Order: sequence, then C-alpha cells, then structure tokens
Amino acid sequence: MKLYELAGADPARLFSPYCWRVRMALAAKGLRAETIPWRFVDKPAITPHKTVPVLVDGETVVADSWTIAEYLEDRFPDRPSLFGPPPGKQLTRFVAAFVDVTLFPAMSRLIVADILQVLHPGDVQYFRTSREARFGMTLEQVQANRESGVEELRKLLRPVRLMLREQPFLCGAAPMHADSILFGAFQWARCVSPFRLLAPDDPIEAWRQRMLDLHGGMARKVPAFD
Amino acid sequence: MKLYELAGADPARLFSPYCWRVRMALAAKGLRAETIPWRFVDKPAITPHKTVPVLVDGETVVADSWTIAEYLEDRFPDRPSLFGPPPGKQLTRFVAAFVDVTLFPAMSRLIVADILQVLHPGDVQYFRTSREARFGMTLEQVQANRESGVEELRKLLRPVRLMLREQPFLCGAAPMHADSILFGAFQWARCVSPFRLLAPDDPIEAWRQRMLDLHGGMARKVPAFD
Repeated sequence: MKLYELAGADPARLFSPYCWRVRMALAAKGLRAETIPWRFVDKPAITPHKTVPVLVDGETVVADSWTIAEYLEDRFPDRPSLFGPPPGKQLTRFVAAFVDVTLFPAMSRLIVADILQVLHPGDVQYFRTSREARFGMTLEQVQANRESGVEELRKLLRPVRLMLREQPFLCGAAPMHADSILFGAFQWARCVSPFRLLAPDDPIEAWRQRMLDLHGGMARKVPAFD
Repeated sequence: MKLYELAGADPARLFSPYCWRVRMALAAKGLRAETIPWRFVDKPAITPHKTVPVLVDGETVVADSWTIAEYLEDRFPDRPSLFGPPPGKQLTRFVAAFVDVTLFPAMSRLIVADILQVLHPGDVQYFRTSREARFGMTLEQVQANRESGVEELRKLLRPVRLMLREQPFLCGAAPMHADSILFGAFQWARCVSPFRLLAPDDPIEAWRQRMLDLHGGMARKVPAFD
C-alpha cells in the first residue's frame, strides 16, 4: 500500500492531522504503507482527489481519512478493530466531529502562522493566501494573543480531560481509533509549532506521551518541536 | 424498582437531566420503576445519598446516573444494551463528559432563572442562594443576555449537529444511552423554560422530537414548555 501524505519542506515532516489518523490506523492494524510525500502545490494528488490522505491499495484508491479508516476496518476484519462493534463507529465519529469543528479551529488560532516555517517553499504563498481569506486577517494577527487564547482551547478540552483523569486512553485501557483521531490534532501541532498547548500537569499531556510511545514510538520519530 | 427523581411544585414535573438519563435507560431496557418525587429540601433522599437519581431495586440502592446505567446494564444483560460492547461504554462516557462540562453549563446560563418558576416553594430559597453563589451574580443577571448568548450554545453543539445531519440518532439508526444522555439536557430545559435553545430547522431539533416520540411519547407527556 502507498499513502500520500502532506509533508513540509522536510519530506519527513508529515504534519497533516488527517494523515496521522490513517498512519495510526495502519499501525493499529499492524499494516505498513509506503509514504509518498505530497505538498499543496502537487494537487490533485491522484485524480480526482484534491486532498490527502489518499491510500492506494493495489488497484483501489481511497481518499478521506474517515473513509480510509472504514476501508481498512472492512478489508482487514481479523486485525485489531479500529472502532469495535456498534455503536463504536458512530461514537468514534462523534469524537471526530468534536475534533474537527470544535478543537481543531481553536488549535489553529494558536499556531497557524507557525506552519509557514515548516512548509515547502512552493506551498507558502498558497497556504498564506487561502488561510488568510478564511480567517479574514493575517496569520500573524490570528495567533497574536495566543498566550491568553490557549485558555479557551484548554476549556474546550475539559470533557477529554475528565476522561483521561480516570483512564489511560479515551477508549479505555487501550487506544482505539477515537484516540488516534484526537492524537492527530496534537501531532499536527507538535510537527508545526513549538507553542505549548497543554500544561505539563494536564492528564491530556500524559495521554499524548502515551500515544507518542505507541508502535515503537512511531509518531515521536518524525521531525517535530518538543 | 423505585426511582427517586427531582420534581417541581408539580410532582409530575420531573426535570433533572440526570434523572432523565435513568428514565430513558429504564425504558430502553423495557423496565419500569415507580417514581418517588424528591425536592432539594428533602435531602438526603436516602442516607447516605444527598442527590437524585437514586434507584432502589429490592435491597439494592444505587445512586448517580452513570452508576445506575452501569447497574442496569449488568443486572439486565439480556435486555437491549445501553452501551454496546467496548469501546461503546467509554465513548458514551465521553458524550456524558461533553454534556456535563461543556453543554450543560452553557445551557444553564440561558435558562437557570426560569427554574425558579417551576420549583416547589420550599426549594426556591435554597436553589437561588446555592446557584447565585456558584455564578457570582443573581440568576436574572446570568441569563440577561440570552438572546445573543444562545449563539454560543449553538456553536458548542456543532459536533452534535454534524452527526445528526447524517443519521437519525447519535448512535446511528437507533438511539442508545449516549442519545439519552444528550436528551436529558434538552428535556431538563424543556421542563423548566419556554426559551428556545434550537432553531426550528436545526437537525438537533428534529432529533429532539424523535427522542420525545420514543417509548410511546414518554418524555413528551410530562409537564413542560413547548
């Protein structure tokens, strides 16, 4: 299998939160895929897909991190499950929705300008223009007050904190795909910015370290700020 | 079985969001419990429990809505499951955490003063004093700007909306306990306040109506604003 993944100037700096969901899902299933670094200027990666991740499994091409996770679950049913039986997949989807529309935008406001430093030079102009149009201000302005803005993120993380105070992973004693989805956001942040999103004594920070340790420290090894 | 439930001046106005989680769980399991209306002035309901819900099942007394749900799941394993197999229970717990620490406080700020109108006269002073100490202002001040404040709640509900745009219940084609937990918050609001939390065309509103229809319209029948 091959996985098209968003990379920075350093092709080993794989920083997409969505690609990380797939990387972790593959590892959880005990599978490997060859990484094909992709940059924004390369789009479409594989016609007709304009964004990564894109998984190529022989003749089959699958895009979108959620669709890829479902594909892996169906294709490799005898490997460890990503979702568990119903309603595991639906509730995992709720975690994804929470990360996508609540956490990720709050994280972005804290670190989006930092991303410029790690991008491939060919991506910088596209990234700045498209994101500044989205925010309606310069990226530097977006994250200008992040020292106080981080409190808003930490407040939004309260339900996660409540869980991780009681148990090592969101899914219980062992991680499953809901953990990988949340982790993808933190791994994205770690790969693009030195800004500290979590207090050192936050139970979520201890969980993040456990996630970095999984699969022989797979996520810890990529170029990142720490 | 008997269930101690928080009631208003009208003993049929059962408005606790946590008691509703249990009512819905009992109904989902096809069980019935006799309601024993309880007011704040009655505490402790049953020594040593100071809050409701409290379920009495023969010699067994169980308090706390989550603990009661676990109890019912274990005691009646052949009835429809509340959580499904792992990680269903853990992810349901995440939904509960999200409702408890994110949604419920945001809802409270919109309708907490309205509760005074439905309380048993003996509860009014206790409720006002304890809640005003918590908010650091009068209850009327808390909800003074609710016409604009409701937008904050609707924003926090975005992950829920995303799910319910695609499927009838949070747990998929049929409701499970995660749906009941979220519903408890909306049913609490419906029982104590005429204030509209959801826009009429919100997919969450359609879901709320579906929840009200469950079990022969059980939740629709109690005294409420609509």
